[in-house]
This record gives sequence, structure tokens and C-alpha cells, in this order.
Amino acid sequence: MNVNEIYDFAKEIFPINRSITGSGVRETLGIIQRELPDLIIHTIPTGKKCFDWYIPKEWNVIDAYILAPDGEKICDFKNNNLHLMGYSVPIELTLDLEELDKHLHSLPDQPDAIPYITSYYKDEWGFCITDSQRKKLKDGAYSVVIDSSLKDGELNYGELLIKGDTTEEIFFSTYICHPSMGNNEVSGPSVVTSLSKYIQKVSNRRYSYRIIFIPETIGSIAYLSINLMDMQKKIAAGFNVTCVGDDNNYSFMPSKHGATLSDKVALHVLKNRDPVFKKFSFLERGSDERQYCSPGIDLPVCSVMRTKYLEYDEYHTSLDDLNFISPSGLNGAYEVYCSIIDILENNYNYTNMILCEPQLGRRGMYPSTNTKNSNSSVAVMMNFLTYCDGNLDLLDIAELIKQPAWDLFELAKRLEDEKLIKRQVSHKVAKA
Amino acid sequence: MNVNEIYDFAKEIFPINRSITGSGVRETLGIIQRELPDLIIHTIPTGKKCFDWYIPKEWNVIDAYILAPDGEKICDFKNNNLHLMGYSVPIELTLDLEELDKHLHSLPDQPDAIPYITSYYKDEWGFCITDSQRKKLKDGAYSVVIDSSLKDGELNYGELLIKGDTTEEIFFSTYICHPSMGNNEVSGPSVVTSLSKYIQKVSNRRYSYRIIFIPETIGSIAYLSINLMDMQKKIAAGFNVTCVGDDNNYSFMPSKHGATLSDKVALHVLKNRDPVFKKFSFLERGSDERQYCSPGIDLPVCSVMRTKYLEYDEYHTSLDDLNFISPSGLNGAYEVYCSIIDILENNYNYTNMILCEPQLGRRGMYPSTNTKNSNSSVAVMMNFLTYCDGNLDLLDIAELIKQPAWDLFELAKRLEDEKLIKRQVSHKVAKA
Amino acid sequence: MNVNEIYDFAKEIFPINRSITGSGVRETLGIIQRELPDLIIHTIPTGKKCFDWYIPKEWNVIDAYILAPDGEKICDFKNNNLHLMGYSVPIELTLDLEELDKHLHSLPDQPDAIPYITSYYKDEWGFCITDSQRKKLKDGAYSVVIDSSLKDGELNYGELLIKGDTTEEIFFSTYICHPSMGNNEVSGPSVVTSLSKYIQKVSNRRYSYRIIFIPETIGSIAYLSINLMDMQKKIAAGFNVTCVGDDNNYSFMPSKHGATLSDKVALHVLKNRDPVFKKFSFLERGSDERQYCSPGIDLPVCSVMRTKYLEYDEYHTSLDDLNFISPSGLNGAYEVYCSIIDILENNYNYTNMILCEPQLGRRGMYPSTNTKNSNSSVAVMMNFLTYCDGNLDLLDIAELIKQPAWDLFELAKRLEDEKLIKRQVSHKVAKA
Repeated sequence: MNVNEIYDFAKEIFPINRSITGSGVRETLGIIQRELPDLIIHTIPTGKKCFDWYIPKEWNVIDAYILAPDGEKICDFKNNNLHLMGYSVPIELTLDLEELDKHLHSLPDQPDAIPYITSYYKDEWGFCITDSQRKKLKDGAYSVVIDSSLKDGELNYGELLIKGDTTEEIFFSTYICHPSMGNNEVSGPSVVTSLSKYIQKVSNRRYSYRIIFIPETIGSIAYLSINLMDMQKKIAAGFNVTCVGDDNNYSFMPSKHGATLSDKVALHVLKNRDPVFKKFSFLERGSDERQYCSPGIDLPVCSVMRTKYLEYDEYHTSLDDLNFISPSGLNGAYEVYCSIIDILENNYNYTNMILCEPQLGRRGMYPSTNTKNSNSSVAVMMNFLTYCDGNLDLLDIAELIKQPAWDLFELAKRLEDEKLIKRQVSHKVAKA
Repeated sequence: MNVNEIYDFAKEIFPINRSITGSGVRETLGIIQRELPDLIIHTIPTGKKCFDWYIPKEWNVIDAYILAPDGEKICDFKNNNLHLMGYSVPIELTLDLEELDKHLHSLPDQPDAIPYITSYYKDEWGFCITDSQRKKLKDGAYSVVIDSSLKDGELNYGELLIKGDTTEEIFFSTYICHPSMGNNEVSGPSVVTSLSKYIQKVSNRRYSYRIIFIPETIGSIAYLSINLMDMQKKIAAGFNVTCVGDDNNYSFMPSKHGATLSDKVALHVLKNRDPVFKKFSFLERGSDERQYCSPGIDLPVCSVMRTKYLEYDEYHTSLDDLNFISPSGLNGAYEVYCSIIDILENNYNYTNMILCEPQLGRRGMYPSTNTKNSNSSVAVMMNFLTYCDGNLDLLDIAELIKQPAWDLFELAKRLEDEKLIKRQVSHKVAKA
Repeated sequence: MNVNEIYDFAKEIFPINRSITGSGVRETLGIIQRELPDLIIHTIPTGKKCFDWYIPKEWNVIDAYILAPDGEKICDFKNNNLHLMGYSVPIELTLDLEELDKHLHSLPDQPDAIPYITSYYKDEWGFCITDSQRKKLKDGAYSVVIDSSLKDGELNYGELLIKGDTTEEIFFSTYICHPSMGNNEVSGPSVVTSLSKYIQKVSNRRYSYRIIFIPETIGSIAYLSINLMDMQKKIAAGFNVTCVGDDNNYSFMPSKHGATLSDKVALHVLKNRDPVFKKFSFLERGSDERQYCSPGIDLPVCSVMRTKYLEYDEYHTSLDDLNFISPSGLNGAYEVYCSIIDILENNYNYTNMILCEPQLGRRGMYPSTNTKNSNSSVAVMMNFLTYCDGNLDLLDIAELIKQPAWDLFELAKRLEDEKLIKRQVSHKVAKA
């Protein structure tokens, strides 16, 4: 993978005005489809009931700005799509500063940041502005222009299914509903696009992969309302990929009860790659694990992030831009998820084929001269063998013997070739 | 409740000479019955076998004192009933100081305290005296008068049954066998008398309540020998109420294995009301949990106290008086037990009625404008909902989401009214 | 037991040249048999397959030395049998220093130590020498003489079965394959020989005992290959006795999953006898627990040691001599294993025969006068009684009530005599 591949992709989709619906979503999905030709783009019509929710009207924007009394164009949507509050209704009117001010949003503590605000389910309009600019606004007549439309239309999402040897699935979910912000969230779809290519290249894939590019909340709810039975039957592990762009330490959001295969593998990778990663409580959740782990859904979905939403000042402002994320930040997250996939693909239960320790010397696997220190030289191999009892999987053993799981892949293969261990047939997994 | 209600009651019963049997017990039960007209006063005759024990003879005292050589009346039972060792046999004799001294009890480390001593199961007599007075006794002839009787009679205890919607019971047990001492023990029957009134006022009581006023050890053994089968079938949670009068931090004595509903609710209340409460080990027990938690009995009985028996210098001496306890000390314990009852009454399992998060905005339960901080404003509601999976009860959820359980009562009701959650019918609970 | 009994025995067997086979093993077993006449000496012929292994050829040595250019005899096997690498093939040749050097082994960090080296499964020859002597060797012609034989023969081990009331067994395993070294390993067979005498003197033995004196690795593998089914059916607890000779703190090597009866009793004894003992991880194993705990074998075998193999500088060198071990070191380990046996023999489950606390006063087991402090005087008895619920064994209760188990043996007997508790018949144990 080219070192700038993910960052360049993020840069490409950054300027597009995305929301939970609209042409920006379709444009983004189109770019993803260019990279992943097997991506299917689904549509759900406005008004369709999804569990407790209804698909909202589709929102599109042609232009939006304010003309100040001195004729200056401010809060110009064309300069920064964050200036317009998401789902603002169309409007064209002139009003004084006092009236206008009720529709302005800024952050006094961050005077140079444009905040990101939406009002999906209540008909409103508004502009977001830096607090320093807001303070300079003078009395007078302001002309407000919002050339948007809020009409029956559709909600769009992308879905990629990559087949493996079994119908058991690994699930990835990421967002395509945020406008021009970096970590939250052009990072997620950018990393997952490259990750999908990685998965397509895994040879002899054990698992099938279900990867979705959706708007947050309404998208996951809609997707679950259509696919729940299938997902509950098939998904072995799942990951909600968000905030994966910056260079800070990794963060971990567990699944609701925190002891699924997803949690186990994610924690193992983080512990071995970034021992000081930050482990959050499920009480601090705020992304689509809210839906995936809700009662009656209960999918094994957790989240590995770089800096978590709500945990950085730039979050949901114009400061979360292409400078906040970086090639190395994105690539690091990509590598963590690649490791997760590698472990899942290699995480078998093995049983010893012989009783007691094998005679490794005869097999050329053990030093024949027994010196003071030779006991330790084959320790990893002997430790691995001693726990291959069929009840523990490779990942359990890696934890027990304090080795990164990936250091055991080759070893397991060699021991299998030597007929010292046998891979167990999993009865949970149906052949595809 | 009047702020002095419990303390005034304690003051009223303080002077009465109580023991494990006798007229003082009946007088005390009469005063409790005046407050709780439904109280039933039971009698068990002397000699009746109760498991490994026999109901002892009934002990009554008319008068008891010592005449010193100088004619002064000392150790006068009428001044302080602690002066006479409990269950002292009747005697009238004159003896020299050396002989008398064998029958005197004092505390060298607490020279101004009269100790509390009893000899229930061996025919003895004795006087308790301050060590400073004992040291002043001069040689000479002392006349000892104990006008007591130890005859076949009865053991008495009070029992109050308050019916609820189900036959499942909450059990409270307290002592009426200690003479004039404050924390151990006019505090227990005083708090439980007011607590009984509180329970009688709980509307739509889910549980039935079994409340007993008994002498320690022989009383609980006798009560268990009569009611064990019924208690094991019905009691969901139970509490031994003792040492609940002073103003110091709370103490907790767990049930034998420490993981019953009683332990869970008591610990939750203490943790949220007095985070520095003192948690004892069952090895430090010394009250009727010794019987309630004994092998083959195994009732879920624990104990919330103020300062625990044996843990304060004034314990079992005349210094544990009406000054050692206080209105606020008694009221605090009363409130803790009220909270325990409130939680038990409200501690249901709930299940979500819809899949995924509900659309709260449509129901007016969620801010429609999604700002940087609005995520956290409904966090408690969303956290509560996410754990309503039918397996966890309200108390489990309160612990998981780090909220006092009582903050969830109204919320649960509102969510039930909105048909977002449904109370589960407990199959453990038979309808009354 | 005479205070020098174990040390004198160790001294007697110390000089013998032992290896995994050969006359030195038979001579050692003969001395053990003199002390334990019921010991059976088994033989397995060279070439016999044992799981993945084959019994090697038998190795015997008549003489071995090097003649230096100046005619001095060095590395003389008759001075110290460590000079000859174990399983050296016979050879007689003259070679220069450069060629000789390839066959010499020394320890630069321990210039005065002769290392202990073996080459069981590859035909090699070699001499072990102190590094200081090696450095002084001058150029010239060296004559090497190894008058050894490596021929089809047999592997020998000793087995002692001591019958008890049941067929359930306690298992002890120790080594007779190390040449002249003290802690590792004349200590093991020396301690186990005396321990066997102790077991033979235990009256009314509940358990049967299986005690084996074997060569390490090949011996345990061979023994398991013959006895596995029987061992898995009968062994309740087992111990690998090694490195039990020095005076340092005790060490503990758990069984693979660390929660067997063996682990429980060994940890209890160590905790109560030497609270600062060193607890190792199974990852640090290196003795025959490698076989006894291997997958599919899974016997409950752990190890109490003094200073563990690999954990001391003298390990596997000539410095691990009779000065490294001591009478008190050996006797301490002996006593720990005696305590382990005592607990196993006394570790019954008891049930209360009466409900609630018994009336101890009537039985003369309780002070009749109830004073401020008398509550604590019978605390151990009451605590023991309160946990005799049939589910917990004596050792569980000892842990719960924080008493050494041996302090409860007499108490349990007295309570049984008083018919307050009843020993449960174990359904796991078949009558012999």
C-alpha cells in the first residue's frame, strides 16, 4: 500500500457536503465504489419505518450565505459547508442582528472554530460561525439565503460482501454522513476502503466479510431493521470504525458486556502494539455500538479508535480538518485492523496429536546438547504446545504465554506440518 | 416523621430492666404494641426444646443492692439495672470484702463504667460496679440482697406481619433483651418500630414484611425452630437491626457468603449514602446473623449498623447510654433502611419493547438540536435503556451505570408509561 | 527422625555416577530399596517406544580422562563425574589443543565451576572443565580416553505403592538421573525416601500412595506410557519433588491451570509456613510437570521446592555440591511435604448435625459467664462450625477463617465426638 493512499483518499472526499441523506452521500459512495467495484449502493425511501424510526426527507443544498449590512458575504456554505446547520430548511429573508443571532451557533471557548451542528428531526435553520467573527457583527439588516431542499427522497448506504470459506462473518461499519471534518469523519470510510482491499487479498479466507458505509444512527438502525436475523446468525466479530485518523494513542470502546471475540482480539492487538492505549467504558459510548449492542440486537461489536469522539477539543468543529489527521495516523489504524483480521483468520483451536512432550531432537526442532541455557531457547514452542488442548484457541494461548498472536502463526503451521498438533474443526462454522 | 420520634421512643424504653425473659420484656413489647397495634406477642414456656437449646427459666427482679460496712447502699439495682449481673439467683447474706470481691465485676481500663454482665445458663450471682468505686471499698461486713426470682415461666417475643401483593417476604429482626443501654440496644427496637410504620404506609406493597422483636440468640433460635420452613420458602431479603443509634459512620455485616439480594441492596445504599462506611467480615459477626446464616438455615440476612458492637469502648457498659445515641444517629439508620425498602419495592427487571434506540425526539424526550454537548444530557436515560435486557434488575443497572437506584424509580416509570420498557413478571413470586 | 538422616542419605548417594540409564541408577535404587524394602525396581529395554520417544541405549563408564602434553591427567572422571559429558561415546585418540577445545565445556562467568552437560540423543563426546583450568591449557598433543559403553540395555526406575483405606492415590515423583550434584538432585530422592517412611507410619491411611524414583523426562514419559489410565483414574493429588535441599525460601510451581487439590494444599502449607515463598508461573516450569500436566495427561501435579532449578548460580555445576544443601534445608522440605500429607489425610467435608449454633455451655465448651471479651475466645470453634455445610472441606474452611489447617484437626475430631458435625462420605472415593 502506498504510504499516502489512505490520506489522499481522505483528502478527495473531504470537501463534499455529506449529511444523513443527499447527493453528497451518493457522491462519496460513488468514489468508494470506484475503489471497490463490488460495492452495492442501497436506497431506502423517505418515510419507511425502521424499528422506532422513519427515514427522513432528503436534504440537499445549492447555496447558503448571509449578506452583512456592509454587503460582505459571510458564513458562505461554499467556503466551508460547516457554516450551514445540517438539515436547515430553505429560507430567504432579511432580518436585524438581534433576530439573526438566535440562529447563529459559535463556541466562546474556541473563538476560531466553526462548530458542527445539525437538526435532523426538527424543521429549523441556522448558521455556524467562529465566535470571533460573531463578536464583530454590527447592527443592521442581514439578508439570509438558504437555497436548500428538504423533500421526499432516499437514504443511501454502501454494502460490500466478501465471501470466505465459511458463512461466518466479520463485520465492519463506518460513516458517510459527516461533512468536511477529518477524524470524525473522513477517517473511517478512508481506512475501511483500504481495509476492504486488504481483505480481498487475503488468500484462503476463512471468514466472509460484511462491510457497510452508512449514515450514523438512522443508517445503522435502518440496516439492522433489514438484516438483523441474518446478522445475528452469521456475525462472529464486528467493529465500528470511527475516529481513526490522528497520531495520538489508540482508544478502545468495548462491546456492551465486553467479553466477545471482537473485544478479545482488539484488546490483544492494542496491548501488543500500543500498551498505553486508552480503554473507555461502554458508558462513554456515542457511536453506532449504541445500536449494535442494544438489547435484543446484542451483536459483538466494539471499536478501536485513535482519539475518540468527544475526547478532543477539535471534535465537531472546523478544527478537525485535514491537518488534524495524517498519513501515519490513518495507516496506524489500518494496520491495527489488519492485525485484527490476521488473528481472526488464524485463530484456531489446536489439539496435541501425541501424549507428553514430543521428541523434538529427533525432528531437528531441539538442540541435542542440553546446556544450562538451552531449556529457554525453545520455550515459546513448548509453551504453545502445552496449551494446545483443544479448549483454548490460538489467541487464548498467546495471552497465556505472553506472546503477540502473530508470532504464533508460523509456529502453528510448522507444528501442524510436523503432525504434532491438529486444527480442530469448529462445529459453529457452517461450510459456505 | 417528627425528628425526635425515634429518640423519644428510645428514651421511653431505656429505663426498663430487660433480659432474655421477664416482665421487662413484656413491658417493652407492650409499648411497641401501643405504637403497632397489629403486633402479636408470643410466649414459649420454660423448658421447651428449640433445636439444641431449652427455653430457660424466667428471671424477674424486685430489688438488689449491697449494704457497705458503713451502711451505705451501693450497686443499687434501682439506680442502674446494670449493677446486677443478668440472671443473678436470689440471695441474702453477709460476707467480708474478700468473699464479696469474687462476685464483683468492673473494668480497670474504664474506671467510671459499670460493665454489663450476664450468666444465663449457670446459676450464679454478681454485681457490676465502676472500678473506681470498687477500689474504694473498705474491709468489713457487706450485706448482699438480691430479691430476684428464677422460675418456670415464659419467653416472650413480638411479631408483626404486614401483607403485600405477594407472599415473598422482607424480614427484619431486632432485640428486646438488653437492659438500660443505648446503641446496644434500645436503638434497634426504636428504629424498627418507626420503620414498621413506614412500611405500613408504602402503597401497593409488592412484598410482605415479617418483623420480629426478640431476645438475642435464644429468641432467634426459638423463632427459627418454629418458623424455619415458612421462612426459607418466603424470605427474599432480611436484616438484623442492631446498634443503629449513634452518629458515627455506618457499618456493614454481610451474610455468610455475602452475595444475597440483602447484601446487594444494603451495600448499594451505603455506598451511595456514606462512601466511607466500614465493611466487616462475617468472621467478625456477633449478632443473630450467627443463627440466620448458620448451615441448614442459610437465610439471606445481613446487617447495617452505625457503630458495630465490640467496636466502641462504651459497648456493654453504662457509658452506652442516651448520650451515646442521638436523634440524628437513629434517624440516619432509619433512612438507610427506608431506602433499602424503597429499592426492594422498585427493583424490577425490565425489557425493551423496541429494538435499537427509540426515537426520543419524536416523544419530546431528547433535544432536537444535536450540539457538541447534547449527547451527555440524556445519558442516564440512554444508559438505563441499554441495560434493560430482562436479565438485569434495576439495582444491577444502577450499579452498572453508577447512579443511585432511587434516581431511576421515576425514570423507569416514565419509560414504562411511554411503552419503551416492560416490567417482567417474576416467576419466583407467587401472588398472595 | 534423626536430624541428619536425610543429609546422611544424600551424602551416601552423592558420589555415584548417575544418568538416565546405567549401573549408577541401579546402585542408587538399591540403596533406596535398602531403606524401603517394598520398593519395586522396574526395567524397560532399550528401543521400547514410549509415546513419541524410544528408550535410549544404556550408558556406562569405566574411566575417562585427558592426558595433557606434560603427562598430567586432567578432567579425571574418577575425581568428579561431572568432568565427562553425559552419554559421551567411547573414544581413545590423541589430538592437538585446537581440536580438543571443540569438545570442552566451561563457564566463563563461573571460572571455578565444572558445568553439567549431557548429550542423550546425539552421539557425541566431551569433557567439562573449570574455565580457569581451560585457560591454562598449553599447546601440544592431548590423549583423550573415554572408556564408556553405549549399548542396548535397560532403563530402570523404582516404584513404591503404599496402600490406604481407599484406592484414591497421592502421587510423588522424584529423580535418580543426576550425577554428583546436591540440590538438583540428590535432595529429591533423599527427601522422598524419608517421606515414604513417614507415610508408612501414618495410621489409618485414607489414601494410597504411589511414589516413583525415575530419570527425568524419559522416565516420566515411560512411566506415563505404561500407567496413564490407572493414574488418571486414581490420582487425587501429586507432587514433583526436586530441588529440596538448600536453606533458602521455598518456591512453588503450580500445575498447568493451578487450581487442583495439589495446588490448594501446597499453597496453604507454604503460606502458613513461609509467607515470603516465591510463586512461579507455569511458564517457568522445567521439570516433570512438563509431562504430568501435558495436554491429554493433565494430572494434578505441582511442585514445592527450596531454590528452584535455573534460579541459582550453582545450578547444573559442580558448585551445587554437599555444601549447597544442608540438614535443615532438607528437613524443612520434608516437613512441608509431611504437612501436605497430614492435610490431605484430614481434609474431609463436614456437615452440622444440629440447626443453629449448638448450646456449647451445656457441653462445657463455652464460658457460661458472658463478659465483654468472651465472645472472641471460642471464635475459631464457632467459625469452623458455621462453615461446616458439607460443601466446603476442612482446607476451604481453614482458608476462610484464616487458620492453619493443622490447627483444625483436633477441633474437628472433638466436634465429631460431640456429634455436632458429621464427616461426609465422599462419593468420589471407592473403598479399596
